[in-house]
Amino acid sequence: MKVLIVFAHPEPRSLNGALLDVAVSELKRLGHDVQVSDLYAQGWKSEVGRGDFPSLGQSERLKPAAASKQAFEAGTLTSDVKAEIEKLLWADVLILQFPLWWFSMPAILKGWVDRVFAYGFAYGVGEHSDKRWGDRYGDGTLKGKRAMLVVTAGGWEEHYSDRGVNGPIDDLLFPINHGILYYPGYEVLPPFVVYRVDRLGDAGFEPVAEGLRQRMRGLATAEPIPFRRQNGGDYLIPSMQLRAGLERPGANGFALHLDQAGDAGREGKLHSLGSSPRHACGGR
Amino acid sequence: MKVLIVFAHPEPRSLNGALLDVAVSELKRLGHDVQVSDLYAQGWKSEVGRGDFPSLGQSERLKPAAASKQAFEAGTLTSDVKAEIEKLLWADVLILQFPLWWFSMPAILKGWVDRVFAYGFAYGVGEHSDKRWGDRYGDGTLKGKRAMLVVTAGGWEEHYSDRGVNGPIDDLLFPINHGILYYPGYEVLPPFVVYRVDRLGDAGFEPVAEGLRQRMRGLATAEPIPFRRQNGGDYLIPSMQLRAGLERPGANGFALHLDQAGDAGREGKLHSLGSSPRHACGGR
Repeated sequence: MKVLIVFAHPEPRSLNGALLDVAVSELKRLGHDVQVSDLYAQGWKSEVGRGDFPSLGQSERLKPAAASKQAFEAGTLTSDVKAEIEKLLWADVLILQFPLWWFSMPAILKGWVDRVFAYGFAYGVGEHSDKRWGDRYGDGTLKGKRAMLVVTAGGWEEHYSDRGVNGPIDDLLFPINHGILYYPGYEVLPPFVVYRVDRLGDAGFEPVAEGLRQRMRGLATAEPIPFRRQNGGDYLIPSMQLRAGLERPGANGFALHLDQAGDAGREGKLHSLGSSPRHACGGR
Repeated sequence: MKVLIVFAHPEPRSLNGALLDVAVSELKRLGHDVQVSDLYAQGWKSEVGRGDFPSLGQSERLKPAAASKQAFEAGTLTSDVKAEIEKLLWADVLILQFPLWWFSMPAILKGWVDRVFAYGFAYGVGEHSDKRWGDRYGDGTLKGKRAMLVVTAGGWEEHYSDRGVNGPIDDLLFPINHGILYYPGYEVLPPFVVYRVDRLGDAGFEPVAEGLRQRMRGLATAEPIPFRRQNGGDYLIPSMQLRAGLERPGANGFALHLDQAGDAGREGKLHSLGSSPRHACGGR
């Protein structure tokens, strides 16, 4: 397989840097092709702005979505963005690796999403009719590919548990897993999350590294998070609200958007938002 | 009152720009002092990196949290970051205004948080004991101040409703409202959200503007989102998990962290995650 890792940590000698090396080594050992977009090393520009749309007239009002659409269609996106789009089209698997800063991705990685996920490429794709509402959430340009987050957190795992004060990690990552990755078509694997990274130490590193190697070995076969396909019949059109009665009793919030039918048998080995035992956690 | 608006849109002639003007005018008419941090106009740098810590040795390993702590304590943060910290200390109310891009804030605003919310200022504050776990989530440097989001979205309000395919807007904004604003001590007001902004048109603008003016008039008196204080006795220490039985029947996920005791009488006029009628929405 072809794997793209987008890496967003400013220090190669960090735990993140060490885990990147572990992932790349294991993937190569398995015979996969690997590319790494090291955003800090590339000097990635984070801000969507006029400079992204050289064909926009100097006095013309910048409408970011419209400008993105026009530039994508005309092939006038900047070369750094085009190069990332080429990598996304090349890769069978996309891995986003980052430290959790303020409960989300670092600005540089958000800027990679904001700039690379162009209109006509990652959104604004497909027909709108009474049968479908664009190609998104299970359809889209990147359909048939897989994606996964590799995340390090300074906080305790319990603080990110179902009742933990930070909120459940799966809910915190839902805007990324569902809103950024599933949206343009990726099947999204459960995240690999390492906690209390400042206290990990040398003795703690090897079990985490081995956990990550295992996840790299399972990239092709792991069960994705069972998000519901938008155009699969579960949602009303055009309100895009989940039809009544499809959810598990008591489910609400983000958990509504998981198809957990027949889930009893998978419970405990499958990712599950807002309910069952925790999935893969490298930190312990 | 003193109000700081942090504004994150690249085009002054946008709907966001027009709403910024509306908010500033109304606040001044009411006699408030207003400062605006216009991040694009300031040329804000988004990425946390070595350049943020001039006192770090060239060959020294960058540990972002440790470097932030050291620089904050020593007064060696960069001047752009120091200026924003001064504004935060000055303001009684903080407003973050941005377009919702990929279900979160634009990279430039995330970079403002990543860089300005320094260790020792916005996190890593207070004692850890068997009675409290640092000053956060209801305590902290910014306690006694209020904060609020002003957000524009291209999508439909229904798509962000309790059963909508994007997930409920309050859950999507929880990592910001709770994780970024409530964490360092702000009381957080319900967000002002405008939907379908690309279709708003001139006729649609005035009702939205009036809705925003009303919210500006209510900044001092509006009921904040009733997040639970971390050190108020609701959480176990050190696991920081919500004690059993405190939540509403059936509540889970982010909604656990709302104190909805005695909420029956407030229902419908108060923000409520994952349950009751929607709050302030400007777009319709």
